[in-house]
Amino acid sequence: MSIENKTIDRAAQEMLRRTQADGVEVVWDRLEAQEPQCGFGTLGLCCRNCLQGPCRINPFGKPDRGVCGADAHTIVARNLLRSLAGGAAAHVDHAYDVLEALKKIAEGSAADYELKGEEKLKAVAAKIGLDTANKDKNTLAQEVAARAYETFTSHSSEPMAWLKYWAPAERIETWTKLGVVPRNADREIREAMHQTTMGMDADPVNLLLAGIKQGIVDGFAGLKLATDMQDIIFGTPQPVTTQTNLGVLKKEYINVVVHGHVPLLSEKIVQWCRELEEDAKEAGAAGINVAGICCTGNEVLMRQGIPSATNFLGQELALATGAVDLMVVDVQCIMPSLTNIAQCYHGEIVTTMPITKIPGADHVPFSFEEADQQAEKIVRKAIASFKRRDMARVKIPDEKADIIAGFSTEAIVGALSKVDESDPLKPLVDAIKSGAILGAVGTVGCNNVKITQDLMHVEMVKKLVANDVLVVATGCSAHALGKAGLLHPNATNEFAGEGLKAVLTVVGEAAGLGGPLPPVLHMGSCVDNSRIGDLLMALADYLGVNVKDLPVAASAPEPQHEKALSIGTWAVAMGIFTHLGLPPQVLGSDVVAGTLTGDKLESLIGGKFYVETDAKAAVEGIIEHIKAKRQALGI
Amino acid sequence: MSIENKTIDRAAQEMLRRTQADGVEVVWDRLEAQEPQCGFGTLGLCCRNCLQGPCRINPFGKPDRGVCGADAHTIVARNLLRSLAGGAAAHVDHAYDVLEALKKIAEGSAADYELKGEEKLKAVAAKIGLDTANKDKNTLAQEVAARAYETFTSHSSEPMAWLKYWAPAERIETWTKLGVVPRNADREIREAMHQTTMGMDADPVNLLLAGIKQGIVDGFAGLKLATDMQDIIFGTPQPVTTQTNLGVLKKEYINVVVHGHVPLLSEKIVQWCRELEEDAKEAGAAGINVAGICCTGNEVLMRQGIPSATNFLGQELALATGAVDLMVVDVQCIMPSLTNIAQCYHGEIVTTMPITKIPGADHVPFSFEEADQQAEKIVRKAIASFKRRDMARVKIPDEKADIIAGFSTEAIVGALSKVDESDPLKPLVDAIKSGAILGAVGTVGCNNVKITQDLMHVEMVKKLVANDVLVVATGCSAHALGKAGLLHPNATNEFAGEGLKAVLTVVGEAAGLGGPLPPVLHMGSCVDNSRIGDLLMALADYLGVNVKDLPVAASAPEPQHEKALSIGTWAVAMGIFTHLGLPPQVLGSDVVAGTLTGDKLESLIGGKFYVETDAKAAVEGIIEHIKAKRQALGI
Repeated sequence: MSIENKTIDRAAQEMLRRTQADGVEVVWDRLEAQEPQCGFGTLGLCCRNCLQGPCRINPFGKPDRGVCGADAHTIVARNLLRSLAGGAAAHVDHAYDVLEALKKIAEGSAADYELKGEEKLKAVAAKIGLDTANKDKNTLAQEVAARAYETFTSHSSEPMAWLKYWAPAERIETWTKLGVVPRNADREIREAMHQTTMGMDADPVNLLLAGIKQGIVDGFAGLKLATDMQDIIFGTPQPVTTQTNLGVLKKEYINVVVHGHVPLLSEKIVQWCRELEEDAKEAGAAGINVAGICCTGNEVLMRQGIPSATNFLGQELALATGAVDLMVVDVQCIMPSLTNIAQCYHGEIVTTMPITKIPGADHVPFSFEEADQQAEKIVRKAIASFKRRDMARVKIPDEKADIIAGFSTEAIVGALSKVDESDPLKPLVDAIKSGAILGAVGTVGCNNVKITQDLMHVEMVKKLVANDVLVVATGCSAHALGKAGLLHPNATNEFAGEGLKAVLTVVGEAAGLGGPLPPVLHMGSCVDNSRIGDLLMALADYLGVNVKDLPVAASAPEPQHEKALSIGTWAVAMGIFTHLGLPPQVLGSDVVAGTLTGDKLESLIGGKFYVETDAKAAVEGIIEHIKAKRQALGI
Repeated sequence: MSIENKTIDRAAQEMLRRTQADGVEVVWDRLEAQEPQCGFGTLGLCCRNCLQGPCRINPFGKPDRGVCGADAHTIVARNLLRSLAGGAAAHVDHAYDVLEALKKIAEGSAADYELKGEEKLKAVAAKIGLDTANKDKNTLAQEVAARAYETFTSHSSEPMAWLKYWAPAERIETWTKLGVVPRNADREIREAMHQTTMGMDADPVNLLLAGIKQGIVDGFAGLKLATDMQDIIFGTPQPVTTQTNLGVLKKEYINVVVHGHVPLLSEKIVQWCRELEEDAKEAGAAGINVAGICCTGNEVLMRQGIPSATNFLGQELALATGAVDLMVVDVQCIMPSLTNIAQCYHGEIVTTMPITKIPGADHVPFSFEEADQQAEKIVRKAIASFKRRDMARVKIPDEKADIIAGFSTEAIVGALSKVDESDPLKPLVDAIKSGAILGAVGTVGCNNVKITQDLMHVEMVKKLVANDVLVVATGCSAHALGKAGLLHPNATNEFAGEGLKAVLTVVGEAAGLGGPLPPVLHMGSCVDNSRIGDLLMALADYLGVNVKDLPVAASAPEPQHEKALSIGTWAVAMGIFTHLGLPPQVLGSDVVAGTLTGDKLESLIGGKFYVETDAKAAVEGIIEHIKAKRQALGI
């Protein structure tokens, strides 16, 4: 495969030429070595859930049942449910981690942190029915944390706490009818694991409903809870300008890369990189430069303006620059190959979390209680690593793009309020009603090495904005769009349709940008998909309709992780038409694939999946959906 | 494969001849159709945890890494951890279900039940530090339930509640050193799922330690909690005599089979079969005959003396008799093929649980609150089904064996107290010390269609008892041994070594049996492996040593379910040498397989896995281990 077919990112292309010349194996090489991939697994027709297996269903005939008697539909649905439980567990564990941090900070046992998001704290506390008057922030935060923990401790059949507080009544009613309301996040994950063991559920539709429940668990006990807790601890993002792509690495500086998903560590690394600036200079560096990868990168980008080095598929290539002195990782999406690449070029890989270790990496256990001490230790390791760097082998691509990020829901409403202070949503809603804005799409999720890196994200978004569709983005999608220049006001002029451009210009100028807003609003990390949910709920509320009635869609153009599946399922459960640029491993069952993408699901829950691998066709499908929703609303 | 190679159970052989003649597909046929099974999956070398896969590692060369960079060790260990989480989740969900029932019964909202195990309730309450004086049983039960729920609600780093109350201090210390003490059962399951998603843990040893934690979760929040709650609700088993094998079905009677694992339903079915006896007679039957399969069968066998029809691999063959009018199932180990077999012969399949539905089965939702109403409805369906039965097609094998069961730890101590009332464990310990009893082995777990049904269970146990090893059994192992006559006093005379025979005779006669105890003591269902744990802890305590020092072993001769793996891991974590008659899917990693079966693990935790597929060799290995432990104890 040509390098141009591997990635559209020119910095990545340059680094790929380097790794190829050096004979260093990276993710594309490993995909090639894996091909052809197993057809049974690709179709979801392989079951390894007991020691009588592994079993495989022949999609063209016999055997049509596994040893226990499970057929294709059971096996495919069961595998999907287990994947969705994996995705939900990842986000819930993340949320639980930041909830635990909030509690300890509020109680004073994590003294290295202080609560910076007092406004968010009050807003959350008020929303969940706490009396906020005359309470210091730590007391109030303890009360919020106690309520949040109920998401994991209730034994009743009531909706789980963080869902009960935030989900629209119409959704809870719809989900109750379908029997998919989660009661307790952990209980549901445990139950899904039980449900998928040998000799349990054989009904594919029942298994799919359980899968939808996992999506709802993810959305409220994962995404929403994580974002709320993080905003309370670190503050709610406001617009920032920064840069993205490998060109943000600096040859004369000590380059520290934060990679993973949870800001508890990365925020401290950023702080200590600043505090040890003088030590860096003593070591012969011009200073310390921090850059981010994946979502912990997005977290410090959104709140601190830290530049982003690259997204998921570029993580190895960042090391191939030879300029990364230390890459510190927390959880999720971390390729175990990083240690090999670092050995071939330069840089230390530091793992920090008890459930994410990599043979060959240096492990520095991270804890809330001793965060400063450990962050300092890690940054000092980076300084020591810089001294070992071979400057002659440093090769940083001259590729970077300016971006504006930090568009939390609060920031978007803030910008809109500059147009209409008393009724901030009105300008946006009016623009949608008039057709100046046709609708909105959230592009989210990963890179997937099976798809040319960033291609689907960028192609789809260019076409969407040209059709006057406002795009909001998170995660690796936001990284991709940033690298392609789409997070900058210039892109509004270059790519946006006339209607969209006019609205973005009015808002941008009112907000003091001296020009339009970018056509794509970077709303944060993958857990910050909750911000998109918040915005949609606010819009629906304003319009007096339900989220499922809005002229909007979601898209994961290049999905890779189980989290992408569970986020997508949450979106469908919210009533959103949800595009995937690659089919999940369900094509072995027409019942499963048909149900997930079918009109019946849409009629029951409002949303459905839409799988289309071609960018142009995908955008056409999405716009057709948006137009149908506009028509139904009579606009 | 000849029928004799499929099963040693003559009733099963007879039914297999029938299904073969009728061209009806059963589990052995489906195994044959699956062969050759996938080598990658068998070795654990297949990963489907993200959409960049599925990936496969070549055990003989390249590719040696998945797309993300995970190697064989990472993939094998990750798959094992996910399986262990599945097994633990199954048992924890079972325990949670009976805990919820206990709470509702005690509060009066499940009025169809009453608490029958007052003695157990008091014993448990006292052990966990509750004041038992002057409290009615429902009040005390509510307090016990509240404590039990803490197993799922604590957010501290303290050991989880039901473990803290029951695990020996030495074990907690050992587990703390290894970092494997569970804090909260659900949190650990969620964390394991997170840990196994893409880009998380790549360290096989760290993943294996997490797997051990899942075993401990299973042992205390699954097995132990379930048994305790069930004994409080339904009473602690005491010795009962009954029969086993398909010959317990009765042609002139309405035959109702209970299949699954949780006694909440099966106890009610047994009750309603008795209550509707007259209705059955009006329908032309001689009465209603209830028989059990798998562990819900063991539950009503242990407490009610309900005969057992067969074990896991015989479930389809019970239907092939044409005499089963209704098979009602709850959870786990239920072949989805049952509906097909019932269609070919006779009988209705009724599912009852929200997470276990089977297309083609009749679903009667079961709830604690309306248990009587639903149980009655199900038994009335059986009566209606009987009327449709074609008597000409009924063929019940004339095979059944007399058994004694009901050997809870309390019942065993009770029998021993007839020998020495003041010091009941003394006779047993003296016999072990003197060598009259060489040691003890618990045989547990499933059938697995890859192994001739019951063969490993029976061959191993005959050799063990001949070598003066006392055997205790649970689950499908107990069923297998019962069918082979080994749960009867006659087997003591026929198979036991002289030393063992003498001891069993003394105890049996003192207990009023008029002869020896059986050489195999049936201790209950799979969750009742906790009873074996309790007995071992009591023995160790009596001797002033640790469980890991006892001359004992565990064996799952024919493991099939993920539960068998998590139970086995709990046994290893308790310090027990644990035999498996079939290797788990870990042979693709020498690191994983070597660690699980290695001396290092044994030196750290006291136990290890021992995989041996030959019955004779397995027994030799176990006896060698027992002798080494005796030597270390100086006996």
